[in-house]
Formats: sequence, C-alpha cells, structure tokens
Amino acid sequence: MNELTSALAAALPGGRVLTDPDVVDSYARDRTFVTPGRPLGVVLAQSRDDVVATMRWASEHRVPVVPRGAGTGLAGGATAVDGCVVLSLARMTAIRELSPQDEIAVVEPGVITADLDRAAREHGLMYAPDPSSYEISTIGGNLATNAGGLRCVKYGVTRDSALGLEVVLADGRVLNTGRRTMKGVAGYDLTGLFVGSEGTLGVITAATVRLRRAPREMATVAAEFTSLRDAAAAVSAIVAAGCQPSMLELMDRTTLQAIDDWKNIGLEPSTRAMLIAQAEGSADEMADLCGAASYVAVSSTPEEAAELIGVRRLAYQAKERLGQCLVEDVCVPRSVLPEMITAIEEAAARHGVLIATVAHAGDGNVHPVFVFDRGLAEPPEEVWAAADEVFRAALDLGGTLTGEHGVGLLKKRWLGLETGPVAAELHHGIKQVFDPLNILNPGKAI
Amino acid sequence: MNELTSALAAALPGGRVLTDPDVVDSYARDRTFVTPGRPLGVVLAQSRDDVVATMRWASEHRVPVVPRGAGTGLAGGATAVDGCVVLSLARMTAIRELSPQDEIAVVEPGVITADLDRAAREHGLMYAPDPSSYEISTIGGNLATNAGGLRCVKYGVTRDSALGLEVVLADGRVLNTGRRTMKGVAGYDLTGLFVGSEGTLGVITAATVRLRRAPREMATVAAEFTSLRDAAAAVSAIVAAGCQPSMLELMDRTTLQAIDDWKNIGLEPSTRAMLIAQAEGSADEMADLCGAASYVAVSSTPEEAAELIGVRRLAYQAKERLGQCLVEDVCVPRSVLPEMITAIEEAAARHGVLIATVAHAGDGNVHPVFVFDRGLAEPPEEVWAAADEVFRAALDLGGTLTGEHGVGLLKKRWLGLETGPVAAELHHGIKQVFDPLNILNPGKAI
Repeated sequence: MNELTSALAAALPGGRVLTDPDVVDSYARDRTFVTPGRPLGVVLAQSRDDVVATMRWASEHRVPVVPRGAGTGLAGGATAVDGCVVLSLARMTAIRELSPQDEIAVVEPGVITADLDRAAREHGLMYAPDPSSYEISTIGGNLATNAGGLRCVKYGVTRDSALGLEVVLADGRVLNTGRRTMKGVAGYDLTGLFVGSEGTLGVITAATVRLRRAPREMATVAAEFTSLRDAAAAVSAIVAAGCQPSMLELMDRTTLQAIDDWKNIGLEPSTRAMLIAQAEGSADEMADLCGAASYVAVSSTPEEAAELIGVRRLAYQAKERLGQCLVEDVCVPRSVLPEMITAIEEAAARHGVLIATVAHAGDGNVHPVFVFDRGLAEPPEEVWAAADEVFRAALDLGGTLTGEHGVGLLKKRWLGLETGPVAAELHHGIKQVFDPLNILNPGKAI
Repeated sequence: MNELTSALAAALPGGRVLTDPDVVDSYARDRTFVTPGRPLGVVLAQSRDDVVATMRWASEHRVPVVPRGAGTGLAGGATAVDGCVVLSLARMTAIRELSPQDEIAVVEPGVITADLDRAAREHGLMYAPDPSSYEISTIGGNLATNAGGLRCVKYGVTRDSALGLEVVLADGRVLNTGRRTMKGVAGYDLTGLFVGSEGTLGVITAATVRLRRAPREMATVAAEFTSLRDAAAAVSAIVAAGCQPSMLELMDRTTLQAIDDWKNIGLEPSTRAMLIAQAEGSADEMADLCGAASYVAVSSTPEEAAELIGVRRLAYQAKERLGQCLVEDVCVPRSVLPEMITAIEEAAARHGVLIATVAHAGDGNVHPVFVFDRGLAEPPEEVWAAADEVFRAALDLGGTLTGEHGVGLLKKRWLGLETGPVAAELHHGIKQVFDPLNILNPGKAI
C-alpha cells in the first residue's frame, strides 16, 4: 500500500481494501472489450458507512471512484480508470425488508437480481425486471444501467420498479430519494435521475423496489418462420390483439444455427427466425396469430414451457462458442423491426462480419451480436464499422443507440448523434451539481 | 401595453399577447386558494416558435414566466407572480401523430387529456392516465405535475406514459428528450426530470406518449361497508388475490352523505364507506373478496358499470355544495390506509373542520377534502392546522405529502420535512443548470 491507500484502509474496517495488483486487475473490467486503466486499489464495501468513508476519502484526495456490482455490464461502465479506486458493492447483499402487503422490498445493491425475484415468489410476488444476466448481475448494477430484460414488454425496465434510493453522494453525504409509496411527486424525480446514470452521480447503497403479483397461469408458444418479415408480423399481431405478452423474443437464423450446432435442436433448413411468446391465459390465441409460421409448439405444462424458453436462454452461450462477442443493443419502434434487422444483415454482409441477432421483439429492442476472433483484445475495425452502420440505422429509424445496456465507454462516440449538443450541455451541468470534483466514474455515460 | 409588453408583442404574431387587466387577471390563478401576483400580460402561444420567442424575450428582460395549461391545478403551481408573463399553452392542441402500430402519440401540450384518450380508443388503444380533471385538464399540465388518476393503480402515473418531450428552455433553446421507443437509456433521464417539475425547468411544447391496448371486458363492483377497516381489508384482499384492478376507489361517510344529500342514492345509516373496483375479467371474484360488505352491487353491462362509477364521479361536485374545498393529496403504503384515514378523522375532530375523504385506495393515495366557508379568500387557520397534522401523519406512516397534485406553492412549507436539506440543495442546483436567471415559474415546486 502507498500513502493514499493506507489512509483509505485506516478509514475503513479491516480487510476492506485490496491492493494486490493481480487481484485489483480482476476488478478492472466488466464484460466489455476495453483495455482498462490501472486502479490504486479495490474497496469491498460491506455497509453504507464503508461507502461514506470511501467517498469522503476520495473527495479529500480527489481520487476517481468506479462503482461496481457484479461486473456483467456490456458497455464498459465499470471499466477502471488510471489511479482510481474500484468500489465494489457486491458484498452488500441484504434484503433489508420485504413487505408482501405493500408489495415492496428494500434491498442492498449487491443482491443478485434473481435472488430477489425468488424471495418475492415465496409470497406470490415477483421482482419483474429480468436482464438476461439476472442470475449473476446485481440490483445495484441493474439500477445503475436501468437494465431491461425479457419481461420488459409487459412490466417495463428497472426504472419502473424503483420507488426510492439511498445514495451516497460524491462528498460522502447520504441522500434518500423517492418513497415507499406507489405514487409521489414531492420534488424533482431524483430517483429517475440516478437510475441509468451509470455511477456518475452517486453510489446507490439501497433501493426500495416495487414487487408485483406473480402471474397465475402462463401460456408459452414457440413458432418457426421461413421469413423474418413473417415473424415480425406475428409480433405486431400478438401485441395488437391485446395478448399482453410478458415475453416476446425473436431469434435470427445465425443464432438458431449456433444453438443447433451445439445442442442439435433439429433446426429445419428453411427456418429463418423463431419467435417465443409467453402470456397469461391461453396459448391458442397467440398460436393462431403466428399464422404464417412453418411450425408452432404450444406448452401445456410448466416443464414444456421451460423447454421452449430454454432454447432462448442458450443463445448467448451458443454464440460464445463461435468467438468473442460484442453484444449490441439498439431499440426501434416496433413497426420498423424488419427494417432494422435488414439493416443489420446488410451491415454484416458489407463488412464481412458475422452478426447473430436476438431481439426483445415486443419492445423493439434488438441485440445484434458481432462475433470476432478469439485472439483479439478488442473488436477489429470492421466490427466497429458495421456497428457504426447499425447504430446510425437505428437512429434513422427513430430508435436509440441503447435500449437497456447503457452508454458506458463503448457508446460515447455516438451519444451526441442521438441526444444532441443541448442535452450534452445539460448532462454535464447536472454532473457538475452532483459531482463537482468529477471523481465519480469519470468519463462514462455522458 | 408598456415598453416591455410591446417588445414581446412585436416578437410574436398578432393577437398573441393580452394585457387587459381583467382578462389577465383571469389567467392569474389555478384552482387553488392563493392570492396571485399581478402579471404584466398573457401570451396565448399557438406554436413552439411562439414559446421560443417568449422565452428569448423573457431571458433578455429577465421577466418571470408562469407556464399554464387549463389552470385546473390544485397546488398553486400556475399561480401568477408579480411582473410575470403567464404563458398559456392551451391553444397548442394538435395531436401531431397517432401511431396504432407503435402505440404512441405525439401531442401538443394543450390537448385535453380525455380527447387524446378518445382519439386512441378509435384504434382500440387508450391513453391511460386519467386525473379526475381529465375532461378539462391538458396533457401539458398533467406532465408538469406528473398527474395521477383513477387508473394509476394498474397503469401508473403520467410519467409512466411519457416517452419523450420537446422542451423550450429558459433561454429559448429547444431540447428534445427521450425517444419514440418503449425503452432507451442513452444519457440521463431528462424526460423524467421535466415531468413533475411544474414548469420550473422548461416549457413542454410536445410530448411523445405511450398508448396502451384498451381492455376487453371490464367488471365493476360497488360495495358498502359498515366500517372503514373492513373496506380497507377488501382493498388489500383484491390486490393480494391478483385481480389487477384498474380502479379501486374508496369514499368515506362524509363524502357519501354529501352525494346522498344531493342525489338521494339511498344511503343506509350504517354505511361508513363505499368501495368501487374495476378490473378486466370477472366481477364475482372481486365481489367475494368484499366479504365483510353490507351490500355489493355487480355490473353486468357497461351502462350499469357507468352508473356505479358515476357515484364516484359525483364526489367533488357534491362536496363543493358544502362550501369551498381544499383538496389534499397524501399517499401512504397501502397497508396503513386505515391508520391514515383514522388520522384524518382525528385531525378533523380536533380542529372542528369538516373533512370528506376519497382515496385511490389501490395505491394508497388519499384525498382529504377540507371544507370551509364560501366567503373566505383562503382556507382559515384551523384548516391549515388540521392539514398540517394530516401531512405529518402521512410522513410518519412512511408516505408522501403529495401523490399526484404536486408541491406548487401550497406545499412548499412542508416539502423539506419529506425530502430533507440535501435534496433541497440538489433541487436548487438542478434548477440553476436549467434556469440560471430563475425566470421559469420562480418560487414553485422546490
């Protein structure tokens, strides 16, 4: 330890500060291909007071702090910068309260998202937001990125389940935002401002989240199509019919092929896309609305449903067998989903890049996964060239660069194209109010 | 006109600026009992460019601007201040776009909320937020206050339907926030920051709002109870059973008495509360869950449903027959609804004030209506003393001062009790970023 980290260790209970270079290095990156900076050390916070002490020390010595949950981020938001301290919230894992009657829970940021969901289900409730990473990602990280997931199409994103926050500010002061009630309009929406701010405005040390009644019976349908347009038409039809799906997932041929090569799911040569839909109530209506499908499977038991959805859950792992993956995250109005997917296919062809696409189709959120060589430290030029085309196509179609992963480091180059110079000025003005020394996750998100 | 208002009129198309004192006076207040200041004039904006010109002029001359929709606010947010210009958005009434496929609309701020809902219903959709004032209030005012309504319990508040905004900033620059997509996390949540900011951060000139599928069949139940606790227990039971009510309204004896005195609804002497519940699906389950009710009516036709809900819609008018009404707006966790109502009854008794209460019970949002003499310009001391007790009781019960009306002028005295000094500092810091000259609705909301 040097003088700085010794002062930090002295301000905290024993064992909280790590400085061994190999250990520190393992906290320096998330799941993004960005070469991180070199941190001074890592703080393993176990309480709000640990976070307060860390931020006071950081303010005093003007040391950058990079807050971190489980490090599953896909935009580089938790990438270390030189001379920073990485502040891990992963050990703050208490569910402080779970009230079935008020349908709320108060949780610490290190709680694994699926663990909260399971705790809620013991009371007939659920925690709705379910990013694909939800078995390994934390509530704190989900809040910092405003994570989405498969159930967003019905229940909204993380922000829609966040009622209030306990936040440690850059100078170590504690702020409570929001409320325990379903509604409330006292003061500006600071809760909403912190959610999705990627650790640049404060460190979330607890959240009051909304739980919802777990649905009664779920119907699940998997349908195969020989054209992407037919699959997209079924998406629109299912939404328009008022089926209120809680899951409406689309996979393209490249994704299905990768799954089939691995698990041999009996993929037909003519299949171009698969749709997996889940809703409360009857499967028959959804199956009927997949009129152009070449094959439709309907679940009649929870086990069958799990099997149908299981195919979707294999998608990322199947792609990782092909190479390293840059997982992108555009979102467009649902009506232009076919145009978006066509633009992705064209970019892939033009730049000779393998792109496998899955989509949370019900809300127009498309994840093109750019596959590249395992030996490379960062995505090669042609991947970024194809990604650039995909981002611009999404914006041209009235969409956004990022539906649920965040801007982090990876998408800062493009952010101005979407939000413009006036928003940029306001973002930096707000940042200055919350973090005048620019020590909270500097260089990210805005 | 004086020199200032002449310069304003010169910057705008003809007929936009009013300075006749009697006319100006009629734009100086909302539905709140606060003595307003004296405006210089009123601008009747018809376009975004009118708003830009007004804000440029106001910045140049440092004139306060009080934006205004229909003036139906209940917290004094649209109260004029001395020397201000009132900026009415009521004439910006275009529905610029309504896309059934993407389930969005782009609307100007002067659109009457119920008109947007009706336009959506032509396509099998609805605009969900429905404040009690929705036949006379505007989308712009609803956004500025983050208005709630009867359907919040299922569909959330105005913020939950706002996807993006076009805003004119204090200096006349135009900002577009948010997006047309269901999800998006590029940059800080400026949309959420403007919603509920009561005209203190910018002037909303258009909004992209989310529409939802209109429900298929609605079941409606009205139940009478001889105790408030039994009614509150039925509320909890209906929510816990997963009925997903889109309306769950409670009326107390005083309210029912006022309605009965006016319309003779055959109120039983023993009835202490009435619950009106509406949900998709079957009425029988909800009726069963009102087990302790002394009487339950179930609708089997839309006409019968309208009749049951009609009783609730009479509530405010019935109370206005008793005197002038201060409509308050606390919100508490649902589990302590009985305690909140008891606290209201005790405050009424202690201060000799007539309080009639209705509640959006499903989300714990309680509207105690304080009735006072018609001759008074403002609520008398004992009303404020009782209101003070009610506010403090709501906070003690883990609730908020305002579920859906906003802080405006009326609740600024109490805001610090809820949000604390750190939040106050951040609120004012944010205000300074957006409005450094403090010309946008000064003195309100924060």
